[in-house]
Amino acid sequence: MDTLARLIDALRCLPGVGPKSAQRMAFHLLQHHRTRGLKLAECLAEAMQVIGHCKQCNDYTDVGICNRCQNRERDNTLICVVETPADIQAIEQSHAFVGQYYVLMGKISPLDGIGPEDIALEGLKQRIQENQVTEVILALSPTVEGQTTTHFIQSMLAQLGVKLSQLAHGIPVGGELDLLDSNTISRALLNRGALQSLVQSAPETEHS
Amino acid sequence: MDTLARLIDALRCLPGVGPKSAQRMAFHLLQHHRTRGLKLAECLAEAMQVIGHCKQCNDYTDVGICNRCQNRERDNTLICVVETPADIQAIEQSHAFVGQYYVLMGKISPLDGIGPEDIALEGLKQRIQENQVTEVILALSPTVEGQTTTHFIQSMLAQLGVKLSQLAHGIPVGGELDLLDSNTISRALLNRGALQSLVQSAPETEHS
Repeated sequence: MDTLARLIDALRCLPGVGPKSAQRMAFHLLQHHRTRGLKLAECLAEAMQVIGHCKQCNDYTDVGICNRCQNRERDNTLICVVETPADIQAIEQSHAFVGQYYVLMGKISPLDGIGPEDIALEGLKQRIQENQVTEVILALSPTVEGQTTTHFIQSMLAQLGVKLSQLAHGIPVGGELDLLDSNTISRALLNRGALQSLVQSAPETEHS
Repeated sequence: MDTLARLIDALRCLPGVGPKSAQRMAFHLLQHHRTRGLKLAECLAEAMQVIGHCKQCNDYTDVGICNRCQNRERDNTLICVVETPADIQAIEQSHAFVGQYYVLMGKISPLDGIGPEDIALEGLKQRIQENQVTEVILALSPTVEGQTTTHFIQSMLAQLGVKLSQLAHGIPVGGELDLLDSNTISRALLNRGALQSLVQSAPETEHS
């Protein structure tokens, strides 16, 4: 196999990249971006070798404890448990959370042979005990596996006396109601909130 | 910028890869394919450095003259001119061509500021003169730029006395007629071929 064929074959380790896309990528780099291709090779080799997991939150980092965990402006007593590092990025982009995270690196999925011992549950328990954590938000995906994991963590942490919560279910902001599944709609109905009156309520006075 | 952020940024040199896909690729490699990621880094670095152009056909190769050009079983007197190395792969997969290729590495496109001097036309002339070429098939894309390039090559090679041809226009095999553009249909009508009679014609006998 020549150099080009080896490159095309190697590119297929990227997710969603088949033979055709791999070939397109190889030709694109060779024709237009040799320098950037070399730079990518360098970054890739470095990342695969030096990136490990943060000792506290289990997120990816190239130092022992990641910058987020070292950030003293974040609330250490509030921990959001997520499945993957990508979930952290999504939550951070909402700018609605100032606590710390804990990454399970997976979820319990008996059908795929993934049990509680295959995800990073021990570190979570340790982290909660060491940091006087007051609330754990379980931000796992709303799937059967996510719910299984949520229930397992709930029973695991029962005796620690820490407050547990999970993300609210409801209709997504900006979503089309007629495109939503009936489960989501029934949860949104169940958890409906009272609308506040638009008329400024006058200061209460005693009438009788 | 930390190692992970640098990797995600570097992955964006791949065609069609935005910030979200780059992040997904990085996390996928880190979680599942560290060894394959390292292998990719190695192949990438090697390819960017050693792959050059074949001295004869201008296709990518890591040796001076590519294997296809050295293959004595192919017809050296027949040359198919294509825009990119990817076009060669497509034609080779049809198993309908046994001649040699010549890659222009682009097409004349005045709107993008690409003139005849920006594509590898000189090498084509040289190749034709040195190899007693009898036919040159211009397999350029059926676009304005492709046609411009075809016409330019046609006039460039006019005095060499070599036979020039181009790929047939018509309806694609397996295509839906009602989805085709009217230009294609009008070309297919113009170039229509006679259907051969299904009844085996009897050996000709003289009747009169």
